[in-house]
Amino acid sequence: MITGKNYIGSQLSANGDKTFKTFNPQENIDNSWQFIEASNEEIESAVTLAHKAFLTFQKSTGKEKALFLRTIADEILALGDNLLDVYCQESGLPRGRAEGERGRTIGQLNAFADLVEEGSWVEAAIDTAIPDRVPLPKVDLRKMKRPLGTVVVFGSSNFPFAYSTAGGDTASALAAGCPVIVKSHPMHAGTGEMVASAVIKAAQKTNMPEGVFSNLNSSGIEVGVTLVKHPLVKAVGFTGSIKGGRSLYDLAGQREEPIPVFAEMGSINPVVLLPEALKQNSEKWAVACAGSVTLGAGQFCTNPGLMLGIKSDALKTFTKQLAAEILKISPSCMLNPSIYKNYQSNNELLSSQSGIEVVAEYAKTDYPNYASQKILTVSGKIFLENPVLHREVFGPFSILVQCEDEIELVSIIEKLEGQLTGSILAEENEIENYEEVVDALGNRVGRIIFNGLPTGVEVCPSMVHGGPYPSSSDSRFTAVGIGSIKRWVRPFSYQNWPNNKLPEALQNENPLGIARLVNNVQTRDSI
Amino acid sequence: MITGKNYIGSQLSANGDKTFKTFNPQENIDNSWQFIEASNEEIESAVTLAHKAFLTFQKSTGKEKALFLRTIADEILALGDNLLDVYCQESGLPRGRAEGERGRTIGQLNAFADLVEEGSWVEAAIDTAIPDRVPLPKVDLRKMKRPLGTVVVFGSSNFPFAYSTAGGDTASALAAGCPVIVKSHPMHAGTGEMVASAVIKAAQKTNMPEGVFSNLNSSGIEVGVTLVKHPLVKAVGFTGSIKGGRSLYDLAGQREEPIPVFAEMGSINPVVLLPEALKQNSEKWAVACAGSVTLGAGQFCTNPGLMLGIKSDALKTFTKQLAAEILKISPSCMLNPSIYKNYQSNNELLSSQSGIEVVAEYAKTDYPNYASQKILTVSGKIFLENPVLHREVFGPFSILVQCEDEIELVSIIEKLEGQLTGSILAEENEIENYEEVVDALGNRVGRIIFNGLPTGVEVCPSMVHGGPYPSSSDSRFTAVGIGSIKRWVRPFSYQNWPNNKLPEALQNENPLGIARLVNNVQTRDSI
Repeated sequence: MITGKNYIGSQLSANGDKTFKTFNPQENIDNSWQFIEASNEEIESAVTLAHKAFLTFQKSTGKEKALFLRTIADEILALGDNLLDVYCQESGLPRGRAEGERGRTIGQLNAFADLVEEGSWVEAAIDTAIPDRVPLPKVDLRKMKRPLGTVVVFGSSNFPFAYSTAGGDTASALAAGCPVIVKSHPMHAGTGEMVASAVIKAAQKTNMPEGVFSNLNSSGIEVGVTLVKHPLVKAVGFTGSIKGGRSLYDLAGQREEPIPVFAEMGSINPVVLLPEALKQNSEKWAVACAGSVTLGAGQFCTNPGLMLGIKSDALKTFTKQLAAEILKISPSCMLNPSIYKNYQSNNELLSSQSGIEVVAEYAKTDYPNYASQKILTVSGKIFLENPVLHREVFGPFSILVQCEDEIELVSIIEKLEGQLTGSILAEENEIENYEEVVDALGNRVGRIIFNGLPTGVEVCPSMVHGGPYPSSSDSRFTAVGIGSIKRWVRPFSYQNWPNNKLPEALQNENPLGIARLVNNVQTRDSI
Repeated sequence: MITGKNYIGSQLSANGDKTFKTFNPQENIDNSWQFIEASNEEIESAVTLAHKAFLTFQKSTGKEKALFLRTIADEILALGDNLLDVYCQESGLPRGRAEGERGRTIGQLNAFADLVEEGSWVEAAIDTAIPDRVPLPKVDLRKMKRPLGTVVVFGSSNFPFAYSTAGGDTASALAAGCPVIVKSHPMHAGTGEMVASAVIKAAQKTNMPEGVFSNLNSSGIEVGVTLVKHPLVKAVGFTGSIKGGRSLYDLAGQREEPIPVFAEMGSINPVVLLPEALKQNSEKWAVACAGSVTLGAGQFCTNPGLMLGIKSDALKTFTKQLAAEILKISPSCMLNPSIYKNYQSNNELLSSQSGIEVVAEYAKTDYPNYASQKILTVSGKIFLENPVLHREVFGPFSILVQCEDEIELVSIIEKLEGQLTGSILAEENEIENYEEVVDALGNRVGRIIFNGLPTGVEVCPSMVHGGPYPSSSDSRFTAVGIGSIKRWVRPFSYQNWPNNKLPEALQNENPLGIARLVNNVQTRDSI
């Protein structure tokens, strides 16, 4: 059941007076549920509870946190088909996507459960004392990761499960030992409330402290701003637009005590088409590019919004093939009319720039909120000179840039903003033959792909989902994979601390059996 | 020989018109050398050269970088006694300190050389492909750390060797593969130039690219501001005051492309005196506290500027003993008249606060720039209410706060700003009996010390030198120890990249023999 209320810890609460509804873009009507925006009093309660919860939650063992995370996964599954129905009603996304994304979310929760249960993630390091060292004795020092405190998570519009209420940011923060307050995404507040109810049930079943999780509704920016400015909030996770992410980043930086914000803000994910690859496989790459551009109505932060080629007959052939392929694909529904409207206006803005030609455009459909895909093309020179063409158009849209030569290609890549990904479609020998292209691309992205398209983000330890600004606010971290826990922890040293009073991870006996760096040697042995 | 010029890469350059001199605080006179502040043109050249150097330097092997770092160490030693003389003339610090700090600096350079030569620091992780996975094939993903780009290092006043020109920030950034531009500290610009000459010699001897290192003179803030705002600068390391660090942090955050700033901004390093410890060992702890407060004229970021006790007869005894001990120690010379002047005015400001009593104050000496140590005392209630008393007084100075009870002690600790360290002087059973005190302190510091004083920062992998704001600008990193390299690198993924085109760290054969996470298992095996 969806109540429309906020979860302030385990309590449903609705003492605010601002309400809003979510929207069904397939039906083009409001959903029936009414959500009550969190009041300042409720925000204060959630933060105070979270801060109190932190004092005990930070001491939870890996096993306890693992049980909590696995129970969240179980409780999400226990919501059954009803949850998938609400997801589809609030996002316009198809049922298969809902199921797949739920699976991914469950997988993420379980991966973090495995990580903290095993325990080596705390990066324990021990340097034992040398009391008779001259001129000064060496002290005993032992280091491990420790959680930062309360984390505020801003759910994303395009991943109602995997990057929202109990998504990657929440799972990694809870795994770290940080209480989480979710600023629920207004487009899928019902999905959010249901998932929040699963988290709350899991917290109760596994005896987590009250306030370890809260879920706050809001349709505007006020709730988020109040949360980010609150002195007891210690970090922020965000997935969304550059404008939204940057404003939170700025707010957090202006606090008396600045706090880290990890904002994943999307990008245009350049795909470089090298000459031999096009000569050999232009048809194959046209099919692949058309599929990647239109996947999920282009509503992925890894959507390839930019293709870069060097003028040649093969590029001409590819362009024609791409046009044909793109027109074979039926348009899909976007997440929300506001996103559809933004797509339309950004699409028109870029299409109207001087020097732009249309490669292919799918005719407008009769369905409201369905995005017709479009491919533009432009010369390298014009692309270089016009920053408007570098903007992300969130939707099934891409620009094919035709460079004069390799030099122009390199200078375009060097001038790109930071990107989550960069793809190279090439024959193997072209990696060496176009070394400057590959090097330049590596310096602008977080993940480089050989002969593949950027959509599809594998959740595994070797994934980097992040990259130079503005694809993320701090390229030193990733939003996907177990490494994303590092956003919420800090190293902490114990000096000369009595062995039996240390956390288990640092005790001589190594009772957790974790991997540790002992006197600069990696080992699972006891001391 | 000291020329007073800037190193723009390997070239000595002085086309600016602003000059300054360093000062000998022991002699109370200007030193003879004249330094020419870097011009905007020189700054631009240094940054452009560094950016160009990055394109090749980032590809240097671990062995090549190790040789560079070890050669820097050798070249510093080759400067011989002359370097130590200049150090002493520009800092007023004694010869023994100069030698010790040079040893530490050499040790740091060699430790980073060992780290990058061994190679596992890149945190290589590999997830191999599963082409027949359903519903979707699993791609091959391989991740490792990659340098950010040009790093600007602001040398500190109080560590002319270990946290300046070729100190921890520079050594860790070069080890990471980042070119370094040092904004030399104006108080020891001669020492800086000599050390810079060693770095340049080493770069030439080991065939590093021109521009991998530059050293810029400046007496004011302009050079630093220009550097931090430059689009081709990608990160900043700073050691100094909160005011200086925060202003750089703000500048970096306001850039179109914000960049990370790691600023270590010092703290007051609370020392908690628990009742049993004072009952058993008040004399021992009075001697230790007096020594730590006055060490190096109190000019350490780990100086214990705050002692917290609970009212008792033992605390009264300790206070008397501390007064006696502190007066046994001869004052020392401060680094510079401006630092001496700041010490005097901050000392007077805190001494003049209402409710303050003087425990002991060494009489003013006849030597200019010699700081007389001082201990104040105040009630917990007054300390809690007056934020002026929480300020760092850089010098041989400390406040002993007398709390009514454990509750007041906890509330004071909770209200403290973030600190580099916190010390607990206690009998072992008091760690449990005062659990709330210990927990509260842990949440405010980067390093917690049992029965020891905070001065003395062991350089080893388990050291954390950093902590919650404002002791550092980002508690997720450390400025000391091999872990400090993580400030300058970002994770980077290769997807489906041909094996023989990957960096060696990620190739199947594991030619470097490094520790890697392969399909979620830690191993040095090949694939």
